[in-house]
Amino acid sequence: MKLVRFGPAGSEKPGIVDGDGTIRDLSSIVDDLTGDALSPAGLERLRGVDPASLPAAPSGARLGPCVPMPYNFLAIGLNYADHAAETGSPIPAEPILFNKAPTSISGPNDDIVLLKDSVKTDWEVELAFVIGTECFNVPADKALDHVAGYCLCNDVSERFWQTESTGQWVKGKSAPTYGPVGPWLVTADEIADPQNLAMHLDVNGKRMQTGSTTTMIFGVIELIAYASRFMKLLPGDIVTTGTPPGVGLGMKPPVFLKAGDVVELSMEGLGEQRQKVVAP
Amino acid sequence: MKLVRFGPAGSEKPGIVDGDGTIRDLSSIVDDLTGDALSPAGLERLRGVDPASLPAAPSGARLGPCVPMPYNFLAIGLNYADHAAETGSPIPAEPILFNKAPTSISGPNDDIVLLKDSVKTDWEVELAFVIGTECFNVPADKALDHVAGYCLCNDVSERFWQTESTGQWVKGKSAPTYGPVGPWLVTADEIADPQNLAMHLDVNGKRMQTGSTTTMIFGVIELIAYASRFMKLLPGDIVTTGTPPGVGLGMKPPVFLKAGDVVELSMEGLGEQRQKVVAP
Repeated sequence: MKLVRFGPAGSEKPGIVDGDGTIRDLSSIVDDLTGDALSPAGLERLRGVDPASLPAAPSGARLGPCVPMPYNFLAIGLNYADHAAETGSPIPAEPILFNKAPTSISGPNDDIVLLKDSVKTDWEVELAFVIGTECFNVPADKALDHVAGYCLCNDVSERFWQTESTGQWVKGKSAPTYGPVGPWLVTADEIADPQNLAMHLDVNGKRMQTGSTTTMIFGVIELIAYASRFMKLLPGDIVTTGTPPGVGLGMKPPVFLKAGDVVELSMEGLGEQRQKVVAP
Repeated sequence: MKLVRFGPAGSEKPGIVDGDGTIRDLSSIVDDLTGDALSPAGLERLRGVDPASLPAAPSGARLGPCVPMPYNFLAIGLNYADHAAETGSPIPAEPILFNKAPTSISGPNDDIVLLKDSVKTDWEVELAFVIGTECFNVPADKALDHVAGYCLCNDVSERFWQTESTGQWVKGKSAPTYGPVGPWLVTADEIADPQNLAMHLDVNGKRMQTGSTTTMIFGVIELIAYASRFMKLLPGDIVTTGTPPGVGLGMKPPVFLKAGDVVELSMEGLGEQRQKVVAP
């Protein structure tokens, strides 16, 4: 299934994309794409619904993030060997895990509103996964049982705050609108191999990132097993898994986003995003 | 007002401590201590309630965290000059901000359940504040308007995960039960000066930490103004502000918590916590 959320920011309704690409309104079946709705039983229930029996969403409705604001919006740093190289960082011995503020989440085509005084806002096309059932001390061989599905994420990053201010990366990863996710939450049964998905990202029509999850250092299974050793993940939590080469910080000289730019990204099976960059 | 949450974990009710120290059940007035209930108007409404008109909570009821699981549970590192010194770190030029997973939150007297294989679990007595209204780009002179109140927090930390694994501190700050907050959310009007509160922490009856928020490097006002430059804070978010000297990591040789230990902490005006450390 391709699950979506549509409508004005803050009052999105859940939906499902039917065979013709029409969004059908799921709000008579489920309140939102969160909690039990993301469990195997919850998703099975949705699978039993005939989309044709549901009203179509209003044509041209805004797409919200494909899941609501999570408690944990985790991200993995330097998780592609080539990307680590372009930023001058060694390949990490274990996953570098950090947080994006939950309030950074936005819809796939919402504007990226630059932070006040931002001079180093950058793009990162990424595969994200969404947790379906609580995870704590989950062994690798059970990890994928906890994944509700996959989605595209732009892990928008303000490099000054991330790396030039004191300490922790969360500062540069957390601005409102710096976390577009969607368009769809594609349920795990429809992604044959999350470690074999092509992706790319363009800025103003110019190809900047080309990659594939085949070159990810720590895959989805390892990330769940690893993170759940030291924290509990909840249904609806989002983990975005790192970016391949081609970010602005890695260019010579570096290139960053400015008002008026347009960012377009896509991943095999997970759809496309398009964001306009706007001044604060 | 001293606001509390009482009852079994996951189904706590809101309460208020009356003049005799009895907890009165607020659940007929407000669903929980979150969202609008923490706004100036929401708190004013609670102030208008006569506690004597409310039923008493069951005697001996468990205290939950004084606010429910937040979206952002932020913490500040090395925010006391003496504590920075004991860990061998320079005094930071600006606040070191990191996340605790929301799922680390626990009641003030709940057991600390050691992480599996933990060998370096440490204590940190801290002043925390709770956000009452949304904050983004808040100037310093308006910062305190956004504080609902203050509470005691034990920023329990697993030092191996925090500092010896790759990268970011969140790994060592996020285990379930590693974030006791409470007993009370003391509303801001009852704390004359948050930068002049004495605190201490004992382990097995031995005094380990003695400090005062007078020696905090970045105070509450600066922390709100700073954090809200790069992220949006929501009502109910918790920011715990760093710890004074005396953590286990700073001892020579270092001392860490083991099953059977008892941690007791308190802060002037904010009450006491007592946690038993138990094996996973």
